[in-house]
Amino acid sequence: MSEFQEALADAAAATETALLKLIPEGDGPESQVIDAMRYSVMAGGKRLRPFLVLATADLFNVSRACSERVAAAIEMIHTYSLIHDDLPSMDDDELRRGNPTCHVKFDVATAILAGDALLTLAFEVLSDHDTHDSATIRSNLVLEVSRAIGARGMVGGQMLDLVAEEHVLGVSEITRLQRMKTGALMNCSCQSGAILGKASDTQRHLLSAFAHDIGLAFQIADDLLDIEGDEKELGKATKKDAAAGKATFVSLLGVERARDQAQILTDQAMKHLEIFGEKGNLLKDLAQFVIERRN
Amino acid sequence: MSEFQEALADAAAATETALLKLIPEGDGPESQVIDAMRYSVMAGGKRLRPFLVLATADLFNVSRACSERVAAAIEMIHTYSLIHDDLPSMDDDELRRGNPTCHVKFDVATAILAGDALLTLAFEVLSDHDTHDSATIRSNLVLEVSRAIGARGMVGGQMLDLVAEEHVLGVSEITRLQRMKTGALMNCSCQSGAILGKASDTQRHLLSAFAHDIGLAFQIADDLLDIEGDEKELGKATKKDAAAGKATFVSLLGVERARDQAQILTDQAMKHLEIFGEKGNLLKDLAQFVIERRN
Repeated sequence: MSEFQEALADAAAATETALLKLIPEGDGPESQVIDAMRYSVMAGGKRLRPFLVLATADLFNVSRACSERVAAAIEMIHTYSLIHDDLPSMDDDELRRGNPTCHVKFDVATAILAGDALLTLAFEVLSDHDTHDSATIRSNLVLEVSRAIGARGMVGGQMLDLVAEEHVLGVSEITRLQRMKTGALMNCSCQSGAILGKASDTQRHLLSAFAHDIGLAFQIADDLLDIEGDEKELGKATKKDAAAGKATFVSLLGVERARDQAQILTDQAMKHLEIFGEKGNLLKDLAQFVIERRN
Repeated sequence: MSEFQEALADAAAATETALLKLIPEGDGPESQVIDAMRYSVMAGGKRLRPFLVLATADLFNVSRACSERVAAAIEMIHTYSLIHDDLPSMDDDELRRGNPTCHVKFDVATAILAGDALLTLAFEVLSDHDTHDSATIRSNLVLEVSRAIGARGMVGGQMLDLVAEEHVLGVSEITRLQRMKTGALMNCSCQSGAILGKASDTQRHLLSAFAHDIGLAFQIADDLLDIEGDEKELGKATKKDAAAGKATFVSLLGVERARDQAQILTDQAMKHLEIFGEKGNLLKDLAQFVIERRN
């Protein structure tokens, strides 16, 4: 295993430990919603966003006790967005990473509530004294994250994706959609690490440019996997976008140009990290991983 | 109009002004979710929770510029919970205060996203510098609110209400359900005002006792209205609980004892406010209003 792969696996394990601790089992009949939260956060995944939090915080030597809680909070938000996006009234997906989606495993009502509770718990964790002893940092984390994931960020992106089925989108509109739907949370993962690390404005600006580039590269890679990927390896249905007649980077640019574009974005992303010297290597490796992954 | 009725109307008007300012119209195709947010927050209601925030903050002479933003954030959370509770997979309500519910006016996907975005925006407002210049107060507001409305509070209460259809609940279980489902947000409305006002532990404890008593009285009054109320005046369907075979305070205690119990709780609630002298009169009036209202 390369140093990067080891770091990615370590980050995933640390995040899962933190998640289980932050979502202890419940009792009483209402604990069904807690079961659904635990089921969904533990359903695997590469834990890329927690890795971004941890690796960014590591640039500034932030204590892992702090950054692992923030990484878990970000993963709760990512999980909530997947649970709600998978619902029958949204993307109507029955499989996620090879497992039944939350509303299939439980029911639609429980899935909606589990998403709501994960979103809420993320803010509870970010504002908890145990996460950081500076109230300014806690409050800034909440502000940064909430701005990224609301109607003008992630939720707006999902809305745009839903109404896009009735519109023909061009490359610039798809780029905007991606920035809102998936880029905003990736960027705020890096920004959360930077807030914990009391990064300078310049550092935060460069990390933001890095996150936007890898976010877009990630989406292009996703579109390529939807065309070329293996359903078993991906653990979800492929060729959904084409079947739905949805424009993607690949349908608009073609496979070759899309692949080139992803590499250009990755190279560009790495350049933004030069200011951090060798310390930035893990994040650079992530940028390359994002476009080479097979699932 | 009595002094109390005037104060209630003023609080509602101030909250609505703040809500419209905090949720400006959007542009682009994704603004459908913003339209749904504005539609739902402006669909009327007594604005009891904002009143609790404002009246509690007024006990401590908090600037209205601060408390009105917090009141609006609490109302966003209340609205999000109504939008999600009304969904077909939950309580399946088509009317709310005489108007089509969010998923009827828009669609289910938009309603889910509008709820998500309102919840998120509430935390953005609470953590914004414009709400208060103390990061400690901002962070404490987020912590207090998020603890009240998650899987062990409001969301857990809704889960309990859904699974209760398969159980026979007694008075103590119904009381627990109500404390989670509606009491937690009412209590945290008062607590938010108290946090803004830097209330002492004793003051916060008394306000909490007050909120729990009026929350329970409010629920009993609601159950009575479901039996005796006028559909037109209420703007929603009545006798739903009886039709669904759900246990309520009224089905368990009978009309007379339920009414007595509500008055006992109201009297008890008022006693908790004696420490505040004349300043507590508006909150005392609210306690009486809660059980005398006709809708």
